[in-house]
Amino acid sequence: MDDGIARRIVAAIKERIHAGAYQPGDRLPSTRAFATEWGASRTTVTAAYGQLIAEGYLITRPGARAIVAEGLIVPGAPVSRGEISTRRMAAFARRLLALPTPVAVDAPPIADFRYGDLSASDFPILAWRRALNTATLGRGTRLRYDDPQGSPALRTALQGYLWRARGIRCTPDDVVIVNGSQQGLDLCARLLLDPGDHFVIENPGYVLARHAFLAAGGIAVPVAVDGEGIKTDNLPAAHLAYITPSHQYPLGGVLSAARRRVLVDWANRTGACVVEDDYDGEYRHDVAPIPPLQTLDPEAVIYVGTISKTLSPTLRLGYLVVPASLRKAFVEAKRLTDRHSPLPEQEGLSTLIESGAYERHVRSVRRRNAERRTALLEALANAFGSEIAVAGEETGLHVVAWFHEIAAELESTLASTARVAGIGLYPVSPLYDPAGPQPTVAGFVFGYAALEATELRRGVAVLADVVAKFRGGVP
Amino acid sequence: MDDGIARRIVAAIKERIHAGAYQPGDRLPSTRAFATEWGASRTTVTAAYGQLIAEGYLITRPGARAIVAEGLIVPGAPVSRGEISTRRMAAFARRLLALPTPVAVDAPPIADFRYGDLSASDFPILAWRRALNTATLGRGTRLRYDDPQGSPALRTALQGYLWRARGIRCTPDDVVIVNGSQQGLDLCARLLLDPGDHFVIENPGYVLARHAFLAAGGIAVPVAVDGEGIKTDNLPAAHLAYITPSHQYPLGGVLSAARRRVLVDWANRTGACVVEDDYDGEYRHDVAPIPPLQTLDPEAVIYVGTISKTLSPTLRLGYLVVPASLRKAFVEAKRLTDRHSPLPEQEGLSTLIESGAYERHVRSVRRRNAERRTALLEALANAFGSEIAVAGEETGLHVVAWFHEIAAELESTLASTARVAGIGLYPVSPLYDPAGPQPTVAGFVFGYAALEATELRRGVAVLADVVAKFRGGVP
Repeated sequence: MDDGIARRIVAAIKERIHAGAYQPGDRLPSTRAFATEWGASRTTVTAAYGQLIAEGYLITRPGARAIVAEGLIVPGAPVSRGEISTRRMAAFARRLLALPTPVAVDAPPIADFRYGDLSASDFPILAWRRALNTATLGRGTRLRYDDPQGSPALRTALQGYLWRARGIRCTPDDVVIVNGSQQGLDLCARLLLDPGDHFVIENPGYVLARHAFLAAGGIAVPVAVDGEGIKTDNLPAAHLAYITPSHQYPLGGVLSAARRRVLVDWANRTGACVVEDDYDGEYRHDVAPIPPLQTLDPEAVIYVGTISKTLSPTLRLGYLVVPASLRKAFVEAKRLTDRHSPLPEQEGLSTLIESGAYERHVRSVRRRNAERRTALLEALANAFGSEIAVAGEETGLHVVAWFHEIAAELESTLASTARVAGIGLYPVSPLYDPAGPQPTVAGFVFGYAALEATELRRGVAVLADVVAKFRGGVP
Repeated sequence: MDDGIARRIVAAIKERIHAGAYQPGDRLPSTRAFATEWGASRTTVTAAYGQLIAEGYLITRPGARAIVAEGLIVPGAPVSRGEISTRRMAAFARRLLALPTPVAVDAPPIADFRYGDLSASDFPILAWRRALNTATLGRGTRLRYDDPQGSPALRTALQGYLWRARGIRCTPDDVVIVNGSQQGLDLCARLLLDPGDHFVIENPGYVLARHAFLAAGGIAVPVAVDGEGIKTDNLPAAHLAYITPSHQYPLGGVLSAARRRVLVDWANRTGACVVEDDYDGEYRHDVAPIPPLQTLDPEAVIYVGTISKTLSPTLRLGYLVVPASLRKAFVEAKRLTDRHSPLPEQEGLSTLIESGAYERHVRSVRRRNAERRTALLEALANAFGSEIAVAGEETGLHVVAWFHEIAAELESTLASTARVAGIGLYPVSPLYDPAGPQPTVAGFVFGYAALEATELRRGVAVLADVVAKFRGGVP
């Protein structure tokens, strides 16, 4: 029997039925006749007929030839593909499609300063593989859907980690495992914002957070930031505030204690929730660790943590510490959203934390990234001196450099010119709320975690040439 | 320096500040005085003060003692925990919390017939580990966020698989990778249903699908099923229909060709989308494979596939084949929802498919599950004979058994009694729409993929005892 021919016979008979060439009640040719017509074996034709019988296109009675079933063509309802161009989508989809979408580009050859990327050479591949294998071997006799809140072992491990590393006191019951911080933000958007509700967002700020809240129908209330993070002197009424207190994204300020207190009090006065994105809280260079906002008031703050900056963004694993009053909603939303996060990553991370390997790894990448940072800051200082002002260098994995003598309007032209020269350069303007005030001089976000010191130096040197030519009027 | 003591000093000073014992502008004790008071070293106290300075609680000037910063206590806004019991949640959360939530229970010792579980011994652990290791080694120099639509390699591999295994013709661009079929259903709910929109759902049907659509604000229009799947003679207007054509869940009918055609024509006439959940399309026992609904009209149908029934539900990997007109919305929704599915699972599956190991594995588990099915059907026939009617045994990994002589009201009592005897038994009533007609006799869903033949036989034998006692009036 030939599967390919049988499939084509099946398709051909269906076409004839749909085209009306075979009518309901018609008898089909005998398998012998059909086999001759197609130059196929009778076995093949018999298989094809059997298939059509199984699908209900044909009906057989013992000893008689197959006939075409009734009801396969709906009278008076011809299908015309042209008529329906797009099916109606929901408001969520329409809001989503109105947002600007990033364009995927390849990393340019000399140095890509894209923020969010990590160096593959930093990944603890052996420890991770060992952790995964341990976890796999520990599996029971059944593969079954797991706890939507996250594996109890991982939540327990994270409780200890959060206390040791970030000073957060919580129980494993307060922790919800998510697929990276983005899912945490999306769950906050869905659970806390109705269409028309206002949300406070740092300006400039993290675009994918703003988009998640906008797609949920929220109305953005951008609030300016300065060197101490978001300005809290005049916070408007809102249902939610999205804040990056440890290292404001992108400008890098650390939210001052006074503002932390104002923010939490504002949340308690207005009933708003504060979503604290501690996306790079593990990376401190010049300053002492500052406990998250969450420690000030665990009932007002949803804490969002991730391993995207310590292990890899490709593992898609993050965690929330959720106020007790919201826990059930988060867990049930997680269940309906995707049942639970994949177990291998959860078991791998939990094993890594329990063995101490995770914190050893964090110390190691903190050291490596401190070296990269030093290399970048020195290179920038050598190349540009007082032509630039660098912000946000105390913590995290990126800095912002403002070019005093280049107008903001030239940002994207400079970025394109740099790309042609092999440098990935990322303007800061797109991180500002489009309706609010914009920066006047060109600024760029320099992520450095994926580049080695030599690449950072070479990248800045090439960039210096580009900028020199650019300012010389030869872009 | 002692980290533990430093941390306690920091906490103590903060408490005094918040309690008003230290007022803004107050000078703190010298580090020497404080060290004496606490029996700590001066280094430790200096570290604690440094921490409080970094956090903005204290201010220092060169040569002077630290003073308490301004603005740490907001006047007139005392935080009273008792006042805010719950923060206001969005309508999505309120709808979600109104739904019944499943209770997690341990697998009972003798035989658990829970549907959805697989046997861990079926998992191709070596092949999977090999596939993961190959994928990890093939990684580039950067760890970066990947394509929200899914890895191109996996989408290409799935295109071939879907054609070979299911007769679906599509391009890799039509495929969207999701975290298991549940995320696919949730994305459909969000993108296609506004609050108040109607959706058609099979009755009885898959509860987590109904819940995902209800949580999005949809209004369920339950439509009865019979041995040929959902009844299509009187489909009401709706925006979406959720259908399990290959093996209706739970009753097991295979949707007839005539009804498939009616359904697709209805979708085109009304502009509705059909969500086709092909959750166990790989498992056919007595019948020839039937091409998915999607092959009839790729513009009207969103096809949902999963590896939860072939590899493991714990990996959380599924895939959609999406009409071209909806593709951008799905991809952008996936980006905002969680960026992309974890790469290790995507790379593992793609390697497995490309090497042919996945299809070999599917054939192997199909054989094993056919054996389990035979064992279960024989055991049920021996134990209960004509007391029961078995439905849906032609395909899939479960059957439904109706107990003619046990009233539907006794389902849950029988299930509890069985659990005490070590048997996990799952009533069919909860899968019916609560507002519609209910079955009159007790029915149970028997999943068999996690049990070996001996366990299935033993489980049915124990169940027969339970049922006999139960019917004898000794529950």
